[in-house]
Amino acid sequence: MNQNNIWKKALKVIPGGNGLLSKRPGRFLDKGWPIYFKKAKGINLWDLNNKKYIDFSIMGVGTAILGYANKSIDDKVKQKIDEGINTTLNCLEEYLLAKELLKWDPFADQVKFAKGGGEAMSMAIRIARANTKEATIAFSGYHGWHDWYLSANIANNKNLNNHLLKNLKPLGVPKGLRKTIVPFKFNDFNSLQEAIKKNKDVGIVVIEGARYEYLSKSFVNKLNKLKREKKIILIVDEITSGWRECFGGVYKKFNLKPDLVIYGKALANGYAISAVLGKKKIMQKASETFISSTAWTERVGFVAALATIDFLKNKKVFKHITSNGKLILNKWVELAKKHNLQIKTNKFLSMPSFEFTYGKNSEKLHTYFTELMIKRGYLATNYMTVTYAHKNTDISKYIKNCDEVFKIISNGIVKNKISLKNPVRKMTY
Amino acid sequence: MNQNNIWKKALKVIPGGNGLLSKRPGRFLDKGWPIYFKKAKGINLWDLNNKKYIDFSIMGVGTAILGYANKSIDDKVKQKIDEGINTTLNCLEEYLLAKELLKWDPFADQVKFAKGGGEAMSMAIRIARANTKEATIAFSGYHGWHDWYLSANIANNKNLNNHLLKNLKPLGVPKGLRKTIVPFKFNDFNSLQEAIKKNKDVGIVVIEGARYEYLSKSFVNKLNKLKREKKIILIVDEITSGWRECFGGVYKKFNLKPDLVIYGKALANGYAISAVLGKKKIMQKASETFISSTAWTERVGFVAALATIDFLKNKKVFKHITSNGKLILNKWVELAKKHNLQIKTNKFLSMPSFEFTYGKNSEKLHTYFTELMIKRGYLATNYMTVTYAHKNTDISKYIKNCDEVFKIISNGIVKNKISLKNPVRKMTY
Repeated sequence: MNQNNIWKKALKVIPGGNGLLSKRPGRFLDKGWPIYFKKAKGINLWDLNNKKYIDFSIMGVGTAILGYANKSIDDKVKQKIDEGINTTLNCLEEYLLAKELLKWDPFADQVKFAKGGGEAMSMAIRIARANTKEATIAFSGYHGWHDWYLSANIANNKNLNNHLLKNLKPLGVPKGLRKTIVPFKFNDFNSLQEAIKKNKDVGIVVIEGARYEYLSKSFVNKLNKLKREKKIILIVDEITSGWRECFGGVYKKFNLKPDLVIYGKALANGYAISAVLGKKKIMQKASETFISSTAWTERVGFVAALATIDFLKNKKVFKHITSNGKLILNKWVELAKKHNLQIKTNKFLSMPSFEFTYGKNSEKLHTYFTELMIKRGYLATNYMTVTYAHKNTDISKYIKNCDEVFKIISNGIVKNKISLKNPVRKMTY
Repeated sequence: MNQNNIWKKALKVIPGGNGLLSKRPGRFLDKGWPIYFKKAKGINLWDLNNKKYIDFSIMGVGTAILGYANKSIDDKVKQKIDEGINTTLNCLEEYLLAKELLKWDPFADQVKFAKGGGEAMSMAIRIARANTKEATIAFSGYHGWHDWYLSANIANNKNLNNHLLKNLKPLGVPKGLRKTIVPFKFNDFNSLQEAIKKNKDVGIVVIEGARYEYLSKSFVNKLNKLKREKKIILIVDEITSGWRECFGGVYKKFNLKPDLVIYGKALANGYAISAVLGKKKIMQKASETFISSTAWTERVGFVAALATIDFLKNKKVFKHITSNGKLILNKWVELAKKHNLQIKTNKFLSMPSFEFTYGKNSEKLHTYFTELMIKRGYLATNYMTVTYAHKNTDISKYIKNCDEVFKIISNGIVKNKISLKNPVRKMTY
C-alpha cells in the first residue's frame, strides 16, 4: 500500500489531511514518513505495510505516557465498554475521577470535564470571563484553535508568533473580539507588566505549566503577588505538561498559585478526555452561564483516566521519565560535542528537544536527522516525548543510532554535502 | 448504595453534578430517578444497586441508536484498542470515515471531525465566518454552549428562549459579539426574512434538520432560493436528527440544499465523534484559518462510526425506528382518547413526544407520568428516542404500561387528586 497516495487522497477529502497539525507528515518528512499506523504496542508502531518503527518522537502527541496499547488501561476500558458507555443515566466514573483529580490539586474544589484540550481551554476562558465581567486576557504559550485565542492576531497578526505556532490567521474570528487578549513572554514578568500597563483591564492571565523550560522562581513569586494584588484569575494550561513529571501539573513544583488548571493529553494515555479544575468560588459560575455537551458524559475517557492514574500510583513512572529525559538531553549534548556539532537543548525533561544552530540551514539538518533515523527504523525528530514504555535498553540503542547519525551529519557539514531525499520539513500548516 | 447521596456529593465537586444538562435527575424526578448506571445492554439499564430499568426515555441522549453495548460495534472498537488508539501516526479510519460519509452526502466534498456536537458547530461557524468576512448569523434551534450561539442573548436575553432551552445567560461571553447573531422561527420563512431585514449583513443561516417537526416544503423552497440569491451559507445542524431516520441528515428527505452539515450523537452509537461536511469551496477555508486538536485524531470514534454505518447498512434500522416511532405516537393519542386525557404530540417520528395540555398543571402531570412509569420499572418521560433495540414486544409492554398509567393520571385529574412524591421536574439548569 502506498501510504503517500492515501495521504494525497485524504488531503482531498479532509482539509489538511487530518484533524491535527502535529500529525501531518510534512512536519517530519514529506515523503519518507510512514503517515499511517496499523498497529502500535509499547513504543513500536507498524505502518500499513507492516513495516515496524520504534517511536522516539512525539508518542501520540504526548498522549501515550505509558506507551501504546497499555494492557492494564485497555482491559479496564474494554470491560466498561461491555457494560455500556453512554446511557440515559450518568456513569459513576465522572464523579470518581473528579474526586481523584481533586486529591492531587488541593487548591481546587471543583472539576468540569471535556474531551479535548482546546475545548477545555475555551470552557476555562468562559468561566474566567464570567467571573471578571469579560476582562482582557494576557497570555503566553499555545492554547488551541478557539476564537478567544486566535483573536490575539486580529489587532496584530504577529501576536501569536512566539507562542509555538507562527503565522496563525484569525480568519473567521469576529472582529468584535479585537483587543480582548494580549501576549506576553513566558517567564518574563516585565513583559507581563507591560501588557497590563497597555491594557488596563487585564483580569485573566493564561500560561502553560511548561513548554521548553520550567517556570522560574522569580517569575512565579512576582506572578503570585500580582495575582493577589490585582485579583487576577490565573489559568495554568497543563494540557501538554501535566501528568508527565508528577501527579497533576508541573506548576506545583514551583509553588505557583493558579485559580484554574487544565489537563488533557497524558491524563488518559491517549483516550480523549480533558479537565478544568478550580476553586469553588470561581468554578460555580460554570452553572450560571451555560456549558454542556453530550460527548463529555461518555464513559471511556473517565475510565481510562482513572486507570492511568492507578498505574501512575503503582509504578514509578515520573522518576523513570524525568531521569531518562535528562539522560537523553545529556547524551545529545555529549554526542554533539563528540562530533563537533552545534546544538542547543531545552530544559523540560519529559519532552527533551535539541536544535541545530546553523542559522538558515538548521531546518535542513533537522530534516536530515529524521531521514537518517527513519532509515534505521526510528520515528525521530529533534523533539520527543519520553514515556514509561521507553526502557533503558531502548534508550541505549536509540543513543547508539544518534551517535552514528550525528557523525554522518557532522561529516556532511564539514564536506558541505547534505543530500536530502525529502524537501525541508514545514512546521506550519 | 444511596444514589441520591452520591449525586449530592457530585454536585459539590462538579458544577451541575455532571457535564450534561440532559442527564441531570431534576429534569425527570428529583428523588426517584436512579441517576447512575452500572451496566447497560440493549434497552436495559442496571443502577448502582443492580436494580433493572427499561429505557423508554432518551437512550443516551439519542446516541445509542442501536441500543446499549451493541456487540458488533463494540467488538470492532475493542479490536482497535488492542492495536493502539492514539499514536504519532494517523489512523486510516479517519480517511475511511470521511470517504464513507461523503457517499451519503453527495453535495459535500470534504469532512472535518471533532469529538462533540457543540465543538463541531463552533468549527462550522468558524469556517462559515471565514468564507463570509464574519457575516451575521441568523439561526433557529439549539446548537450548544459555545460563544457564537450564546451571544444571541447579549442583545436580548430572550433571543434563545424558543430554541429548546430558556433563560440561557450569556455570562462570560464577550460583549464584542453583540449582534453577530439573530434568531428566527423554524419553518417560518417570514421570521427569517424579518431577521434579515433588520440585520442587513446576514450571510450565514443555521437551522436544525428536525427537532419537533420536519422541515416544511414551502420553507425549504424559499430557503433554497434565498440562499442562491443572497449567497448565504446554510448550515444544517443534524447532530440530534441525523442518522436516525436515514443515512445522513433528514434534510435530504426535503430537498434542502445545505453548504455545511453537522453530525454527532447517533453517528457512532454513543462513542464520542462529530463531523462537519461541506463543499470544497467552503471547507478549504478550514486550512486558511487554524482548526486543530489532539483529541480529534483518537481512533475510537472513527472505528465506532464506521461499524455503526456498517450495521445500518446490514439491518433495516431506519424503517424499524420510524415505524415504531409512529406506532408509539399513535398509541399515545389513542390511549389519551381512551382515558379522556388532553395531549398534543410532535411529528418527528424517531423522537416522539407528547405534552399534557393542562396549562400550569402540565409539568406536574409529566412528572407524575415518570413517577408512575418508574414504579413499573421504566425510565420514561413525555419524550423519547426510538432505537433499533426497542423490539416490538418491548413496545407492546411499554404501551400496556402507558395504558395503566394514563388511566391513573386521568382518575387523578377527575378527582383533582394528583399526589406527587417528587417535586415537579425542572427542565432548566
